[in-house]
Amino acid sequence: MNFAIAIHGGAGTIRRQFMTPEKEAEYRAGLAESLEAGYGILRHGGSALDAVMKAVIAMENNPLFNAGKGAVFTHEGTNEQDACVMDGSTRAVGAVAAVKHIASPVTLARMVMERSKHVLLCGEGAERFAVANGMTLVEPEYFYTKQRWDQLQLALKEEAREHKQEAQLDHSDHKKMGTVGAVALDNHGNLAAATSTGGMTNKRYGRIGDTPIIGAGTYADNATCAISATGVGEFIMRAVLAHDIAALMQYKNMTLADAANLVVMEKLTALGGSGGLVAIDWDGNIVMPFNSEGMYRGYKLADGTGEIAIFKD
Amino acid sequence: MNFAIAIHGGAGTIRRQFMTPEKEAEYRAGLAESLEAGYGILRHGGSALDAVMKAVIAMENNPLFNAGKGAVFTHEGTNEQDACVMDGSTRAVGAVAAVKHIASPVTLARMVMERSKHVLLCGEGAERFAVANGMTLVEPEYFYTKQRWDQLQLALKEEAREHKQEAQLDHSDHKKMGTVGAVALDNHGNLAAATSTGGMTNKRYGRIGDTPIIGAGTYADNATCAISATGVGEFIMRAVLAHDIAALMQYKNMTLADAANLVVMEKLTALGGSGGLVAIDWDGNIVMPFNSEGMYRGYKLADGTGEIAIFKD
Repeated sequence: MNFAIAIHGGAGTIRRQFMTPEKEAEYRAGLAESLEAGYGILRHGGSALDAVMKAVIAMENNPLFNAGKGAVFTHEGTNEQDACVMDGSTRAVGAVAAVKHIASPVTLARMVMERSKHVLLCGEGAERFAVANGMTLVEPEYFYTKQRWDQLQLALKEEAREHKQEAQLDHSDHKKMGTVGAVALDNHGNLAAATSTGGMTNKRYGRIGDTPIIGAGTYADNATCAISATGVGEFIMRAVLAHDIAALMQYKNMTLADAANLVVMEKLTALGGSGGLVAIDWDGNIVMPFNSEGMYRGYKLADGTGEIAIFKD
Repeated sequence: MNFAIAIHGGAGTIRRQFMTPEKEAEYRAGLAESLEAGYGILRHGGSALDAVMKAVIAMENNPLFNAGKGAVFTHEGTNEQDACVMDGSTRAVGAVAAVKHIASPVTLARMVMERSKHVLLCGEGAERFAVANGMTLVEPEYFYTKQRWDQLQLALKEEAREHKQEAQLDHSDHKKMGTVGAVALDNHGNLAAATSTGGMTNKRYGRIGDTPIIGAGTYADNATCAISATGVGEFIMRAVLAHDIAALMQYKNMTLADAANLVVMEKLTALGGSGGLVAIDWDGNIVMPFNSEGMYRGYKLADGTGEIAIFKD
């Protein structure tokens, strides 16, 4: 038996001093619920693809995380979400960007993968595809959470005060970050990755981040590894982060640990980007590197051992 | 003096028997105009970035090519365009997806690169960004060309006859393909790539192809090469085509020719994808591989030599 799963709930400036014991317990419970949802699939011989879906959906349904129910608000007070899923056994992919009325964007991403010849659909078009395939749209109110609304109001105030014309991209405070993702290896030797996000608070102009971009925020290939990233999407896209790790493994014979460490800690940092990722290779090795102050994360192996962590140490 | 430029106007089922001498002359003239526009910049010491912009804009303004003025129609009878530009010296990128009222999408992509902290903007949001930065939107009528409209009507008829619910993705006939792109090396040793497309006739659901995806349809890095791809975007995205070539050069010390040949002729073909690309490396070597029946293409070197070609041989 060789299967395993790893998840993340976002990376950023997550510091102990900003976290109450109650909040920390809530996050840990949310991560545990997601991990168990995916692990349950794997333990019963299910596919890595189903496992990462279940794990991500659990976080999309949890208002603590910036995806699905807990998605952050855009500048206009809407919620625009991106998601992606990739099957490492076929390198089939489905992704959606800038969808506003989808409770589980990763579920729509899988629908794109399985019921269309397309890879990436965006905006209202993606929602028309959802409806055409029997998915029910949700009203914008579904995504209302007081915490996220307050974050937008704060961001708008800061922006007005500082005369900023851009959405905050520096993720310099805890409130603005977040993405959820999962990677898994199943007992059949197949890898999969899934990622879902509300993007960043106060984003505008139909900004798309790294989450739905194959090879940037999400990637899976049985020959190498499965990766789900989180952080400042612009840098992750420019670095073609996930594919770069896979390429270092395949073309330089680097281990997943060495490749991920080089790409996140050295190359992404040199480019000025902040973030992290969870990754698993064809042999079940897991790494969860990040160059930010913290990352909500966890993993669980076939023997039942694992870990849930938030801070750097 | 070591500078050079290469361009493409799309790959697909381009066969001699479907081409009149008059049409061929028109395409050759369009490619020559684009090449000269970019080459003129390079010859006067300008940047690779400016050169690829000029070359792509020339093709966007030419109704023969599926980008800008000549963009194909979507299922709904609109024109939704994608574009991307990347500066190999900084790996800065700008891209737009699914924009409907932009005469030169690649110009908006450059605006995203230079005036925002974002990389990829889509839909109406991207157009709000355009307006906020002083760009004038054009009416949908700007993109009306009888040829493209007739292509849509034909595709709709075929779809109705065959009860197809999907946009044609197989690019199995000449009428549905097209993308324009350019890569250049300037005399300062900098590389750049730009790509622009109307996507495919009868596309729907807000489909985004490989063009605006960094590492898929467009990529530039002074350390390796600059690439602009064309073909069936879904496969190019799944292959992370452009970055894979760069990775083979960087991590396996392959030449651009060997890397591009392996990725296009073997790997893309094995995945079931059809298309091609133009690429140039840091030393000015140019390749233009494609596994389709033809590709509108051309290049010009510092010494004034070059070539314009359409068919396989």
